[in-house]
Amino acid sequence: MKIESLSNSRVKEWEKLKTKKYRDETGLFLIEGEHLIKEAEKKKVIKEIISYKEQEEADFYVTEQIMKKLSSQVSISNRIAICYKLEEEPLKDKILILDNIQDPGNLGTMIRSALAFDFQDIVIGTDTVDLYNEKVIRASEGMLFHINVVRKDLKDFLNKIKNDYQILITDVRKGKNIKDISIQKKVALIIGNEGNGVKEELKKYATSFIKINMNESVESLNAGVAASILMYELYERK
Amino acid sequence: MKIESLSNSRVKEWEKLKTKKYRDETGLFLIEGEHLIKEAEKKKVIKEIISYKEQEEADFYVTEQIMKKLSSQVSISNRIAICYKLEEEPLKDKILILDNIQDPGNLGTMIRSALAFDFQDIVIGTDTVDLYNEKVIRASEGMLFHINVVRKDLKDFLNKIKNDYQILITDVRKGKNIKDISIQKKVALIIGNEGNGVKEELKKYATSFIKINMNESVESLNAGVAASILMYELYERK
Repeated sequence: MKIESLSNSRVKEWEKLKTKKYRDETGLFLIEGEHLIKEAEKKKVIKEIISYKEQEEADFYVTEQIMKKLSSQVSISNRIAICYKLEEEPLKDKILILDNIQDPGNLGTMIRSALAFDFQDIVIGTDTVDLYNEKVIRASEGMLFHINVVRKDLKDFLNKIKNDYQILITDVRKGKNIKDISIQKKVALIIGNEGNGVKEELKKYATSFIKINMNESVESLNAGVAASILMYELYERK
Repeated sequence: MKIESLSNSRVKEWEKLKTKKYRDETGLFLIEGEHLIKEAEKKKVIKEIISYKEQEEADFYVTEQIMKKLSSQVSISNRIAICYKLEEEPLKDKILILDNIQDPGNLGTMIRSALAFDFQDIVIGTDTVDLYNEKVIRASEGMLFHINVVRKDLKDFLNKIKNDYQILITDVRKGKNIKDISIQKKVALIIGNEGNGVKEELKKYATSFIKINMNESVESLNAGVAASILMYELYERK
């Protein structure tokens, strides 16, 4: 099917998927480029594919002008896909919990690292950046299709898991070196906001406070780096 | 001194410091906000301070409109400072070498991690993003004032250090787990471009190829994360 008008209702709906509000309402999101489309295909979550080049495989063919409208990148990709949001899966043994992470690049980076170090679940608080934000998707390099990410009220969630999981929270002052902590089979690691760390009201759920051994003249690491080093340590320990 | 005109020659020069070309020509760069100014003061590299608020300490007072012109942030800071670029210092034992890193956030993140894990020198190739780019400065959280970062032709540089330093290069295929490599006192770690890794022409300088132990289904980590985990491993080993 060929669409040529910018005011076509489908085009308008696709474009609205750039907002979190409309993604939430429809349960759909938008991805760009062959690498992401390949990863989405593996997961069978593609609803429809849009292209402005006739030689490409697609469900809808549009003009270059429409494609530019839908794209968030400087140089537009050959294809854009509309995907169904991922289904929530049951929790496994290692959970990364993110409290108020604001930088989409950080969230994408943590998704990649979580998969690399066998954390198969990520639970994000209601104030963390949207998983389906296009910058998060790009920074995750398509890895978000292979991990279970769910959004929850973190207090409720921690109340539910606190008897089953060892809960680790970073604290530069009272934390113990992660290397000196014995780790249980079921473990949840909480990473806090880039500037303020983990909220006080969540700290009471900690089984242990941990830290990364480093030169004390440096105040903190980037949140994505800290999360990755800790998950690496827990992976190495298995 | 009070400046009120947007076409004042000083204002024009300050604004030009947003470009790499003019920073290179003048040896100056621009920083925003109290946290960065505090770090720059410790290092005594501030040439002059600009503010639009009379109660602030500054060398030049400007209008809010001029301040907006100079600022790269959404909400402008009370003060902006013009700094002298940092002097090159003699190399110490642990060097991080960056080959064609493009993302300013990644460079800033690596600067923070380098300091945290006692890498006191960073050598960046001629094709890596400018150290004095405002996004790099912000992502480094002011840590760039406390580390020696120099820009070099990497082939020339590696030729010069190859007899004195153990040179480590990441390679997911032929690399050995970093944990299984014995580390010399003087060590240089090369991190490659986000998409393409380390250039072929630099690989011949490797003393050892290394990798990070992880789930093989994941193609790669974010470059800043990979650099940080490797520096952490080398720090932990000391």
